[in-house]
Amino acid sequence: MTTQYPGHVPDGVAYTGGQYTALKDLMVSILDLGYTQGAATYDVAHVINNRFFRLDWHLERFYQSSAGLDLAIPVTPSELTDILSQCVRRAELSNALVWMGVMQGIPATGNPRDYEACATRFYAYAKPYYGISNADASAGVSLQVSTVQRIPPDSVDPHLKNHHWLDLRRAQIEARRQGYDTTVLIDRQGNIAEGPGFSVCAVRNGTVWSADETALGSVTVRAIRLIADELGIPFIHSSLPQDEFRESDEVFIASTSGGITPVISVDTRPLPQDGFGPVSNRLVRAYWEKHSDEEWTTPVQ
Amino acid sequence: MTTQYPGHVPDGVAYTGGQYTALKDLMVSILDLGYTQGAATYDVAHVINNRFFRLDWHLERFYQSSAGLDLAIPVTPSELTDILSQCVRRAELSNALVWMGVMQGIPATGNPRDYEACATRFYAYAKPYYGISNADASAGVSLQVSTVQRIPPDSVDPHLKNHHWLDLRRAQIEARRQGYDTTVLIDRQGNIAEGPGFSVCAVRNGTVWSADETALGSVTVRAIRLIADELGIPFIHSSLPQDEFRESDEVFIASTSGGITPVISVDTRPLPQDGFGPVSNRLVRAYWEKHSDEEWTTPVQ
Repeated sequence: MTTQYPGHVPDGVAYTGGQYTALKDLMVSILDLGYTQGAATYDVAHVINNRFFRLDWHLERFYQSSAGLDLAIPVTPSELTDILSQCVRRAELSNALVWMGVMQGIPATGNPRDYEACATRFYAYAKPYYGISNADASAGVSLQVSTVQRIPPDSVDPHLKNHHWLDLRRAQIEARRQGYDTTVLIDRQGNIAEGPGFSVCAVRNGTVWSADETALGSVTVRAIRLIADELGIPFIHSSLPQDEFRESDEVFIASTSGGITPVISVDTRPLPQDGFGPVSNRLVRAYWEKHSDEEWTTPVQ
Repeated sequence: MTTQYPGHVPDGVAYTGGQYTALKDLMVSILDLGYTQGAATYDVAHVINNRFFRLDWHLERFYQSSAGLDLAIPVTPSELTDILSQCVRRAELSNALVWMGVMQGIPATGNPRDYEACATRFYAYAKPYYGISNADASAGVSLQVSTVQRIPPDSVDPHLKNHHWLDLRRAQIEARRQGYDTTVLIDRQGNIAEGPGFSVCAVRNGTVWSADETALGSVTVRAIRLIADELGIPFIHSSLPQDEFRESDEVFIASTSGGITPVISVDTRPLPQDGFGPVSNRLVRAYWEKHSDEEWTTPVQ
């Protein structure tokens, strides 16, 4: 059924079941357990100037998520790379966001608990790169520390990228209503966890901090850590209580769409700098330089 | 895109955007936040012999879930009742499962955190009634107490029916691999929570127990509680530690698809009865009798 779908549907090219199509026509059955049970995983890479950025790390995470969630990907990493390249080329994009996903499918028995009776559905697509642009990024965002707790690892392993966003969404809606741009959730112990679709980093006494690496698997944070090592900037993964986080010297958020964005206030406290602080500035400059580094990128075929 | 969709797609009739269509053609865009973020809610009622069972309670819960998740339903309860009836009649079903759902939609800005920039999508459909049939039910199921914790209320309110099933699914997969039919998850304190798509009740010393009513909102358990009151059988909602649960005299699972199903073993312990125990037996008989009671049902128009 070609339902009228309101909202911004970008031009883009999608792949599934051996065929390429317009992104607007890539659909999920209402009966797919990928929809009804969030039984799905995905990853999102980006292309800048016809080069994928750390596609190796995205593929590694995608296959790990898939294995951890018992969702078989029916293509090899090499085939997947070809499919992603095809999507980008067919969409005629030099800067793109590139999705890859796999969902459970519909059980052959009709019983929604018969996961073994499903054939998984793999898909991929490319759409124009968006996110907080470099220009907007320097303006910075206000961030609220939410009272909402991130879904804990005892329930769903946060390393396995998934579509369970109701906690993130609730925190985001509450933050917006209270006048903040965005939010970061806490874990059960009240430590800083992650935001809706991004990781949070803080700079404290010259050291870059990010949430315990057991909790998350951000590709952008992985890049930042490696860059920090190269620049001789100390970097630690640890648990950070929200009270200590509020006293940070610099804060930024990190995600594939947007890269690194400065935070200009945490709750009601303005941060010392309006925009990037001195440490963040060095990291963000190097981060974008890496986008033309052959060791960090893969050309679109 | 009319993708080849493997799996069992039942005959059924769906409604969305003012139109009726075959169930197999009801699709969700890959960009809908209902898919990518599980930003959706739903409810499932059932029809036996052309009568909805406790449709009032299902509608009440559906509108509560929708309000709690900030997902506007664009039809009134009376319009919704008409739509559900239409789906059942057009599908020519006298016994049916009837879904109603609403998903976030695609943001007009393209920014996946702009929930205010979305027009929600409402849908409904009817398909043949299935589930653990009365015949199969009497055979009973083996149940494992899982080590997986149900997503806690601090993250996602379990009263608000949602598509976050990865915890339930993980427990179900693990139980099957270990030779059990099904599973029940625990809460953070190790108390019995709920199973994948059903509630669990136990009978202990003549009293029917179900998980604390703050934790769940099962329509079938609500029916059982009312029936227990009528029959003079004591019923309590409370926290039940898993060790006490394992020592129950009778255990059954309760859900819209299937009604009441006996549990014949908990972990490695067989229950005293093979099939329904004496208390469960009284409840299940009265439960099915209520399906022709005018006060408990609504005719399909």
